[in-house]
Amino acid sequence: MARRPLVIAFDVIETLFPLEPLRARILAAGAPGHVLELWFTRLLRDAFALTAAGGYRPFGEIAAGALESITSLSEDAVRGIVAGFAELDPHPDVAPALRRVREAGVSVITLTNGSAHTTRTLLRRAGVLDDVQQVLTVDDIQRWKPAPEIYQYAAHACQVEPGQVALVAAHGWDLHGAHQAGLVTGWVSRLEGRFPPVFAPPDVTGDGLVEVVEALLALTE
Amino acid sequence: MARRPLVIAFDVIETLFPLEPLRARILAAGAPGHVLELWFTRLLRDAFALTAAGGYRPFGEIAAGALESITSLSEDAVRGIVAGFAELDPHPDVAPALRRVREAGVSVITLTNGSAHTTRTLLRRAGVLDDVQQVLTVDDIQRWKPAPEIYQYAAHACQVEPGQVALVAAHGWDLHGAHQAGLVTGWVSRLEGRFPPVFAPPDVTGDGLVEVVEALLALTE
Repeated sequence: MARRPLVIAFDVIETLFPLEPLRARILAAGAPGHVLELWFTRLLRDAFALTAAGGYRPFGEIAAGALESITSLSEDAVRGIVAGFAELDPHPDVAPALRRVREAGVSVITLTNGSAHTTRTLLRRAGVLDDVQQVLTVDDIQRWKPAPEIYQYAAHACQVEPGQVALVAAHGWDLHGAHQAGLVTGWVSRLEGRFPPVFAPPDVTGDGLVEVVEALLALTE
Repeated sequence: MARRPLVIAFDVIETLFPLEPLRARILAAGAPGHVLELWFTRLLRDAFALTAAGGYRPFGEIAAGALESITSLSEDAVRGIVAGFAELDPHPDVAPALRRVREAGVSVITLTNGSAHTTRTLLRRAGVLDDVQQVLTVDDIQRWKPAPEIYQYAAHACQVEPGQVALVAAHGWDLHGAHQAGLVTGWVSRLEGRFPPVFAPPDVTGDGLVEVVEALLALTE
């Protein structure tokens, strides 16, 4: 039975910052726009393969390799597109959702497969860096989400039990990993629409971040 | 140092049987043709996420879920497209490559993330089922490639050491997992073109199956 969390961890890419602006960079470089979905899916496929097999590479390196593999873009063009990950704009409900959590006396952290540097840049641009108490990333322990170790690490870094941390994410695979590691899970439905049936269903659901956060805060202590 | 294998394990989907015929089914159902690449990539992404997080679902279920997630196709349409995995035609060099291995006194097995039933159907249609001594699949131990356990299981099923088995595959992620598990690795380059830089490089490479098999058989005993 999921209980009200002491810490809410937010996934970053797509959950707080949609990828849509990267499509314009892909088009400007001369590749078709639908490459965006294939690229990000392949990036995750390759990273999860490394995670399942034993192995690790940082986000930027896997991102560049995946984009080179599916297009004939030059290294420079790829670098220019990958740089766009640091210039994404937040969903409009990011600031209200984070502030609602802090007002409720619950800690806010981010837990990302991206780098700490890019994440801090994005949060600063979005005006919410001061609302985030810790910026945790897979680089810290060299295991990507959804391996259980990364979620357990997040709980350890906050000095709480895994069951006292909730993960908020737009991806079924991320929530599945968090669930397997014992965390509470909140799914933002606006990206995937229907929860992917092969993964463990989330504890709470909402169309936007504020709804998900309210549902987590409404759980019994 | 990679040595001449006693067993050569062939990956099945894309390595022996290209997916191109599925594109016609996708188009006939009313979805864009480029969905094929996104679908198969997402299928693997979701399966690898389960493998990394702890979890398992069979190929057909993840395939259907992934296709439903990225299109608005009906369940019936999805079922019709997924059924196409059992009606793929082999690359023309499959029969010559398998026979070359057998003539050299080396065992031939298949090792797939798909089901044994579909694999046997494909091999029978291709006229090579009698050339394959074992049809091994992730269903046997409920761990997908590239988890190390599945490659170790293949060696165990053949009563040899992992270093006495070679995996032949068209996918860098598959060869990475096999390498991590101690197998010899042979990459067929015609699908990916350039070996994905984030994975452990293969022991031998060839554009087609016969070239890869010859390179493996030429290794020192």
